[in-house]
Amino acid sequence: MAKRMFLAGAALIACSTLVPNAPGSEAKRIWTLDDQLAVPEVRALAIAADGKNAAYVVHIAERESDHTVAVLRRVDLANGATRELLRARWVDQLSRIPGTADWSARIDKGDGVQLYRIGPTGAATPIVVHTATAIFGDSEGAVFPGYGHAPLRTGVRAHSWSPDGRRLFYVVVDAVPTSKAIRYDSRVTVERARRRSPGQAKASIYLREPDGTDILLGTRPQSDLTTFFDRSHVRWKKGEVQYDLMEVGADGQQRVVTMAWAFAGRKAQVLDPKVERVYWLLPGPRGGRLSSQGNGDTRDLVETLAGGKLQNYGRFDFAVGDGRAVGGFRSRDGKRSIAGTRTIDNPRFGLAVVENNGVRTIRGEHSLNHCDFVPSLDRGACIAQGQAAPPTVVAVDVGTGQIRRVAPVSPVHDGIEPLKIEPRTWVNRHGYTATGYVVWPRGYKKGQRYPAILVTHGTDADDRFANRENQWEYPIQLFAERGYVVLLVNDPSSRQNAEIRAVYDAWINETKDLPPETLRQLIWLNGVASYEDAVKELIDVGVIDAARVGIAGYSRGSQMVNVTMTNSHVFQAASSGDGGYLEPAFYADVAGSYDAVFGGPPTDPAALVHYRRLSPSLRANHVCGAILQQVAAPFIPSIDFHTALRKAGVPAQLSLYPGDDAASDETHIFHIPSNRSAAMQENIAWFDYWLLGKRDAGSPFADRYALWDKMGAAAPRCDAPEGEPRG
Amino acid sequence: MAKRMFLAGAALIACSTLVPNAPGSEAKRIWTLDDQLAVPEVRALAIAADGKNAAYVVHIAERESDHTVAVLRRVDLANGATRELLRARWVDQLSRIPGTADWSARIDKGDGVQLYRIGPTGAATPIVVHTATAIFGDSEGAVFPGYGHAPLRTGVRAHSWSPDGRRLFYVVVDAVPTSKAIRYDSRVTVERARRRSPGQAKASIYLREPDGTDILLGTRPQSDLTTFFDRSHVRWKKGEVQYDLMEVGADGQQRVVTMAWAFAGRKAQVLDPKVERVYWLLPGPRGGRLSSQGNGDTRDLVETLAGGKLQNYGRFDFAVGDGRAVGGFRSRDGKRSIAGTRTIDNPRFGLAVVENNGVRTIRGEHSLNHCDFVPSLDRGACIAQGQAAPPTVVAVDVGTGQIRRVAPVSPVHDGIEPLKIEPRTWVNRHGYTATGYVVWPRGYKKGQRYPAILVTHGTDADDRFANRENQWEYPIQLFAERGYVVLLVNDPSSRQNAEIRAVYDAWINETKDLPPETLRQLIWLNGVASYEDAVKELIDVGVIDAARVGIAGYSRGSQMVNVTMTNSHVFQAASSGDGGYLEPAFYADVAGSYDAVFGGPPTDPAALVHYRRLSPSLRANHVCGAILQQVAAPFIPSIDFHTALRKAGVPAQLSLYPGDDAASDETHIFHIPSNRSAAMQENIAWFDYWLLGKRDAGSPFADRYALWDKMGAAAPRCDAPEGEPRG
Repeated sequence: MAKRMFLAGAALIACSTLVPNAPGSEAKRIWTLDDQLAVPEVRALAIAADGKNAAYVVHIAERESDHTVAVLRRVDLANGATRELLRARWVDQLSRIPGTADWSARIDKGDGVQLYRIGPTGAATPIVVHTATAIFGDSEGAVFPGYGHAPLRTGVRAHSWSPDGRRLFYVVVDAVPTSKAIRYDSRVTVERARRRSPGQAKASIYLREPDGTDILLGTRPQSDLTTFFDRSHVRWKKGEVQYDLMEVGADGQQRVVTMAWAFAGRKAQVLDPKVERVYWLLPGPRGGRLSSQGNGDTRDLVETLAGGKLQNYGRFDFAVGDGRAVGGFRSRDGKRSIAGTRTIDNPRFGLAVVENNGVRTIRGEHSLNHCDFVPSLDRGACIAQGQAAPPTVVAVDVGTGQIRRVAPVSPVHDGIEPLKIEPRTWVNRHGYTATGYVVWPRGYKKGQRYPAILVTHGTDADDRFANRENQWEYPIQLFAERGYVVLLVNDPSSRQNAEIRAVYDAWINETKDLPPETLRQLIWLNGVASYEDAVKELIDVGVIDAARVGIAGYSRGSQMVNVTMTNSHVFQAASSGDGGYLEPAFYADVAGSYDAVFGGPPTDPAALVHYRRLSPSLRANHVCGAILQQVAAPFIPSIDFHTALRKAGVPAQLSLYPGDDAASDETHIFHIPSNRSAAMQENIAWFDYWLLGKRDAGSPFADRYALWDKMGAAAPRCDAPEGEPRG
Repeated sequence: MAKRMFLAGAALIACSTLVPNAPGSEAKRIWTLDDQLAVPEVRALAIAADGKNAAYVVHIAERESDHTVAVLRRVDLANGATRELLRARWVDQLSRIPGTADWSARIDKGDGVQLYRIGPTGAATPIVVHTATAIFGDSEGAVFPGYGHAPLRTGVRAHSWSPDGRRLFYVVVDAVPTSKAIRYDSRVTVERARRRSPGQAKASIYLREPDGTDILLGTRPQSDLTTFFDRSHVRWKKGEVQYDLMEVGADGQQRVVTMAWAFAGRKAQVLDPKVERVYWLLPGPRGGRLSSQGNGDTRDLVETLAGGKLQNYGRFDFAVGDGRAVGGFRSRDGKRSIAGTRTIDNPRFGLAVVENNGVRTIRGEHSLNHCDFVPSLDRGACIAQGQAAPPTVVAVDVGTGQIRRVAPVSPVHDGIEPLKIEPRTWVNRHGYTATGYVVWPRGYKKGQRYPAILVTHGTDADDRFANRENQWEYPIQLFAERGYVVLLVNDPSSRQNAEIRAVYDAWINETKDLPPETLRQLIWLNGVASYEDAVKELIDVGVIDAARVGIAGYSRGSQMVNVTMTNSHVFQAASSGDGGYLEPAFYADVAGSYDAVFGGPPTDPAALVHYRRLSPSLRANHVCGAILQQVAAPFIPSIDFHTALRKAGVPAQLSLYPGDDAASDETHIFHIPSNRSAAMQENIAWFDYWLLGKRDAGSPFADRYALWDKMGAAAPRCDAPEGEPRG
């Protein structure tokens, strides 16, 4: 039944022309597991030059094939009519083709990621098909690791159209065939941190001329991350195209250089970075680069001009330059720039329109993401979404700032009665603020105490819909449907004052400027204090049952979960996802970072003192709660933490979610729908069991209860004061 | 040219009938790289029941296919006529089929390892072909790691014929198909120490009845190592067949039980181990088990009878029970047993014939290995070989003790003028003896000083021909041809007195009974003293040039090389093969062992003191010499040692030899001929460069010289006293 419902939603989008839902026009339903799985991830949006329609790419889990598939849709911005143009293993780099009504995109139709032209009916014709393909992904021989997708055989890496549509800049990649060559030194030591042996590739940069001939501008080694990852930052100028390359000097230092290829002379030259460097990112109306500066609740919006001169546009409650916000646009006439914004409190995404006469913001009641604009920047289209608002295509009138709802991205999710999700800013015992949300259980009744789960992942608890980079495989919405209060809590902001910013800077820049104890207190224990105090506040007002509180987080969140569980007795159960930073065994792979955090390697007795204070596996005998780790690969730090927990008698489970085949792994952000579905169910089973004592004979994890019973019965008692090892 | 010579040898064996070479009848030649590569590894030998001929299996590197292939040959024991019966990816478990002139063996003809009958002309017909195959080898999804061979898809795991040849006991294995199932806990933590994810399999034990029907005796899980590895220890009794299984109790303890299957009743029962346990290994003539007991230069040969009673046959200069010696045989009438022996000084393999009236030895001037006997044990065939004597098939008359040369195994190697190789027993400064050999450079001139290379690998410097388990990819014979004195030095014997035996017992049995400092001194530094003193002895008598001394060893030898280089200044260059024991990062994988050696994990400050004294990577600043590591996989301990060496400015190279494909690795004992050839050439280039300052523009490693120059020039000076870190 659940499955049918899931399919029905997809079919609806695929086959029919839709008008926007009238909210409240029909009986709404509650969240299901399939709804969690089917949350659409919009990955790209492009508007036609005439502003009449837009195309967007959405990634959706497909249960039948057990793949996450990419769907390209076109939406009529006047009436919302939506049409599925195509469905493939992969679609990205969606772009309008100037001078036509067509789109271009990188698409994997089964023969690797290639460049296609997509016509109005969805017919895709090849533009560049390069059969020698290098793999991006978490598989043997991949040239670079993946990020939440199956291993992608890649022919075309990047492309860019000249504004007149007559020229095409593109990059193809060639894997160096797996050889039986011996690997030496750094090509071996690099594998310490990698589960899979890396392959090698080279990139070739081409320019397709108006007459269709292809000119090879150059070939690049794999060390050129700008070409392999940053799409070369192509800028089209009168008579030439400029693009960036990364050079690695003999000293190992990386530097980016800008090349200019003259169409007439057919020659490339290196631009002098002091004179001609153009900021591709967040261009301001004065030709400089926009950024937000300062600490605290408001930030200065500044344009850094050539020569270093600063233009200050004033102080605002938002920041630009956040990687999750919309990128920057500048109109052809240079008079208008648009930059994506993220508000500092209740983090929500919007737009700042920067003109010579000042700054205007365009913000709705929800976040605006994935925007694109017509060349004049007069009109655009965006995805609007919020914590409780499924993504919707909207049209934006830049002049008036008006936002008009056009079409839903996911009618399935529009059919769900929204949960009550409140933005919050918490102040902890040390005076540090952390933003986030309280997700109220469906049908919350005042006066009744509820179990709670706190979910944390760095800074991305913000106003987006069921964002997986925040909530991973923790089915927050289902938790709320099942009667849990869910707290989404960000790290205390690293920019709230100069002191904490200096601490984060020391960590990120690996300076060793500050003592390890300062980092431990202000980064890790400060976060623990925020979590504890956020929970206690809701305990104190009678909302949360103090005996039934869990915590979950992956990656950076996993760090925090592990530190929390080894320093706090507030949480009786935890789920820690695919992380292991802070474990001693990881030293060699992140030596610079650990040197900043711990003062040296764990084999240095002076530094070992700090590992023993902070590394979760060395504090396993402080844990009072059950700890689940879900991992995408059998990485050593996770294994070490699990082993230490079990040795200390802590109820613990280490669950490895397998890859697509024996030669590849699940990715840090899971991409295999059956793994995602199972991981969510495992989290439900884990918290229901350890917090509520509930068993569900129908859970796919029901066969684990016997072991959990045994571990629970054998767990040592937890009556020592916090901060002390258990007796 | 070298290649042609190599091929010519193989063709000769394959196509012609040979008479034994008359030594000295033709001009002999010196060793070549191809000779090193082509050293044949005899893996099995079986004699016909009538004693007229024997068959043997030899593994040979084949350059064309770049595979190590197995060759099955039959030799007429009367006239030495040798015929190649077949050549395949794999052949083992060679056995005569009782009552016929045929042989049976496990053979991989391309569809996995299956059981075949081989007729006199070499025609192989299937006996059991089981297509569901599990992989043994170092590849993704292999059920068990391999040992020096390419990943072996395996259908038939073991077989045994009843003495009348009418029944066949056999075991087939089925891989559990790779599933997308989540793996938990110990199935994840086990992967910490494994580069490749293990697969799962089950074994099925069958009895083929005289009428050809197959009866399933039982299925076994992968935890039954007796079935998966030890060929079930099948014993045929009147009316029944007995075989062993390994059970793993709920407490994780393994115990072996013996099953008896009655042919008539078609029922299996568990034998009472106290009453009916039969020792399959080294049976004595009184129905007990033979072993050697005591410490020192001679050992008691003892038969342990049922009930624990001991029969002492006297004190001898050999030991029985060494895994490298011939296994045990007992005649049908029970009156005679034959056990393989290994002499304690100048370790050479022979036979002890044990009868009720006493013990006789059969020993030639060379070692006897891989023997088989007719059922009466009156006659047998063996492989005879020595340090300088290529393997030869010999006939043994057990009654008279006469050994008769029958046919060469490798005419190619018989064509080489033997090197002068002398057995030695060295006594080090602490009074501990170590056995081994001095390999003299070709054309050695007294009065001239030579460079030297010491090769060590535990205890297997013994009287066998160019044994790879001792010399790995260190081309000892080529070193001698190139003017090096080579010392093959065993560890000081762990049984020379009770004190050192107790130390080794504490290590092997992981008892923590002795302080770490005692183990460090008596196991590792004692070995270093033996190496240093063996070298110094030859320096003192004017043979070795003290300024040009290298050391090499793999596995256990790699441990010793790494400890030697971080504690001694005698060696200017080292090659360390595929090892990393003693490195802190390896703790979790060998916790019990490290607890005995170091007193705890490296994160325990009290134990860290001991790691800092012994772990090579923590003593990198004591090294005065260049260190090459050749590895079969990017294992963390080797990487950590390399990183530490480079950080300390030590000239170092870490060379990873790849596997057959991206999903598999080279094995600990290399099995890929091109890797073997390259590794030997790398060792030559490495020692020639660092000891002699020689460059060979034709070496495949010539492109490394520039880097070696740079590392050499930047290396810190080594003028601090030994035992102190460099200044």
